[in-house]
Amino acid sequence: MTDNRNEPVCVLLTDFPLTDPYVGVMKGVILSRVRGAHLVDLAHGLPPGNIAWGALLLQEQTRFFPERSVVLAVIDPGVGTDRPILAARSGGYRFVAPDNGLLHPVLQGLAGPGEPEVVHVKPAGVRLPGGCETFHGRDIMAPVAARLLAGEPLSALGGPASTWTPLTLPEAERVGDTWVGEVISADGYGNLITSLKTEALRGADWRVFLEGVEIGPIRPTFGAVSPGEVTAVFGSLNRVEVTVRDGSAAERFAAGPGNRVEARRPS
Amino acid sequence: MTDNRNEPVCVLLTDFPLTDPYVGVMKGVILSRVRGAHLVDLAHGLPPGNIAWGALLLQEQTRFFPERSVVLAVIDPGVGTDRPILAARSGGYRFVAPDNGLLHPVLQGLAGPGEPEVVHVKPAGVRLPGGCETFHGRDIMAPVAARLLAGEPLSALGGPASTWTPLTLPEAERVGDTWVGEVISADGYGNLITSLKTEALRGADWRVFLEGVEIGPIRPTFGAVSPGEVTAVFGSLNRVEVTVRDGSAAERFAAGPGNRVEARRPS
Amino acid sequence: MTDNRNEPVCVLLTDFPLTDPYVGVMKGVILSRVRGAHLVDLAHGLPPGNIAWGALLLQEQTRFFPERSVVLAVIDPGVGTDRPILAARSGGYRFVAPDNGLLHPVLQGLAGPGEPEVVHVKPAGVRLPGGCETFHGRDIMAPVAARLLAGEPLSALGGPASTWTPLTLPEAERVGDTWVGEVISADGYGNLITSLKTEALRGADWRVFLEGVEIGPIRPTFGAVSPGEVTAVFGSLNRVEVTVRDGSAAERFAAGPGNRVEARRPS
Repeated sequence: MTDNRNEPVCVLLTDFPLTDPYVGVMKGVILSRVRGAHLVDLAHGLPPGNIAWGALLLQEQTRFFPERSVVLAVIDPGVGTDRPILAARSGGYRFVAPDNGLLHPVLQGLAGPGEPEVVHVKPAGVRLPGGCETFHGRDIMAPVAARLLAGEPLSALGGPASTWTPLTLPEAERVGDTWVGEVISADGYGNLITSLKTEALRGADWRVFLEGVEIGPIRPTFGAVSPGEVTAVFGSLNRVEVTVRDGSAAERFAAGPGNRVEARRPS
Repeated sequence: MTDNRNEPVCVLLTDFPLTDPYVGVMKGVILSRVRGAHLVDLAHGLPPGNIAWGALLLQEQTRFFPERSVVLAVIDPGVGTDRPILAARSGGYRFVAPDNGLLHPVLQGLAGPGEPEVVHVKPAGVRLPGGCETFHGRDIMAPVAARLLAGEPLSALGGPASTWTPLTLPEAERVGDTWVGEVISADGYGNLITSLKTEALRGADWRVFLEGVEIGPIRPTFGAVSPGEVTAVFGSLNRVEVTVRDGSAAERFAAGPGNRVEARRPS
Repeated sequence: MTDNRNEPVCVLLTDFPLTDPYVGVMKGVILSRVRGAHLVDLAHGLPPGNIAWGALLLQEQTRFFPERSVVLAVIDPGVGTDRPILAARSGGYRFVAPDNGLLHPVLQGLAGPGEPEVVHVKPAGVRLPGGCETFHGRDIMAPVAARLLAGEPLSALGGPASTWTPLTLPEAERVGDTWVGEVISADGYGNLITSLKTEALRGADWRVFLEGVEIGPIRPTFGAVSPGEVTAVFGSLNRVEVTVRDGSAAERFAAGPGNRVEARRPS
């Protein structure tokens, strides 16, 4: 076979900073096993330990990648403990990640052909020789991703997992005429991505509050206000975001994950 | 066709931080449409809103990439407003970008075969379903880039544009025996890239001043001075740079875009 | 030949920040010469001028990349001075880098087929026209890497080098019942990578001290302690690391390269 264009893509998502060699060496491990593998970065250097943020990105953004992609997601504060490693198939994609909740939403929520299939990886068979217990991304998960890219079935990598660590992504709740949610993460611009879902709030005349401070109505884009002005917008992750045009809402409000947001209907 | 080596490359330039998922998801959109597309990053996480800096990079660096490359440039503070999106051909390259001045220099200035050709993208035909107004990079511009990579002509993407938003890159001016310019940007080392052009200043005995403070002569490289010492050099963007060897001129002088620089001939 | 999967990979390691265009334009230079070249990033934005850290990464991590890879390493504070540029072969890999010590460990230490072969690059033949003296990564080293990728022998690029700039990577020393070493670098999490080698310390009951402050025993992973707690671990670079679980040891101890570490046997 001489055409690699129909081969699956490997999508990488980690909290490793790109100024460290950790992402690069994982890529080396994969390329050493699958020559010509097509690697693409979803993001790296995510806020360490914010598993909900990583899980949200997987849930909302996997679908933008080619079907059959192998998604290797390493946010792994428990590395080296006895937390298992999962390999899974869901919605036409395959996933490799530590069993810490990161995959729970995609295993629950991705639409696609067939039922999710999940295995607990048996490290003995795949682990790099001479590795360590502080970098399973390199020593176990990258080799697992390489095997999936090379076409091995999940069943070759471990035994079926009927349970895994759950993670409840923050979901806004309706309380009377108010949706009550929270900030999930701040992006690099300082936009505050909240748990208020676009589909619940589009169309009606909601006003957004951050920790009780009125932000105003939800606009289609921050370009609708003047530079330096605050506005809520419908963001690209299907969530409402609190933003400052040409500025940082995270700094303006000293806000971040866990801060309370509300959408209220004017009475 | 089984060889992807003659297919065009897609070059990405954005102000999206790599710690966010925005660049990655744009790549996913492209790869979903053009399997095996060859993506390469010029730079990301550029200073938000410094359109002149992005435009300078396009003007000076596009030529280092393979001919026929599709350059997708997203610095888009006006996203979601009625600013159009441009697709264009100039100097043997193709470009996709918001119409905010970013492309003006390459449309004016790139030498190459044929006249520049520019269209205003008609989003209706190319836009991802279910998108939002805050991320046209993903929802409109990445699909446009994919179509160009796949070989569609510009004319399939929109109607011809005879005008677009102009941008005058900062240019130094000769006033008697002095060139008067300004800092365009600071790079990650704190080198101050100025609007003083190398070709105007090479050879003669100019001395550089930053906000009236004498920096000294323009040397071929900062290696010519001692660690910690300040010097002007001929930089890699065909502009004079104010640098500190093994240090940051931006910090040393608390300087950045807009600060005045001069090159004076000794009297 | 229509299959690029057996072609060598080009691995890039630099101290150029990814928010600058320098890495991107080097890639453009390579792709313009070797269409379809497979480029992969080991890391960028390394701490400027920490040549020992770059050299350690090359020594410990090259082996994770496919054999025959061309490793282009640019940490080059002496750019534009008369320091030579090296092209070399060692341990089945090829390397291009400034002659400032960066390659010394891989030329000494990589096991693999044949003797290391080293040449001083003759820039005249390979240099980009119209370049500058501040960016040999783009103007000389990227073209050299492209030639190696294209299959040219080292001997076509310059004359044999029998000496090059030495670099002694920090090595811990045994003094009685104590290993005395130092911090080599801090990674992006604030883990302190030390010169204490894993193979010297595994198995026995060592206790680690940082500038005289007791850190404790060396554990397999930081997951073995509670969040916020300090521990030494066996790290992924075959060195002991001082870490804070879910935190930064660099910040906690205000420590970095050069700080003294010791491993002592309890008496």
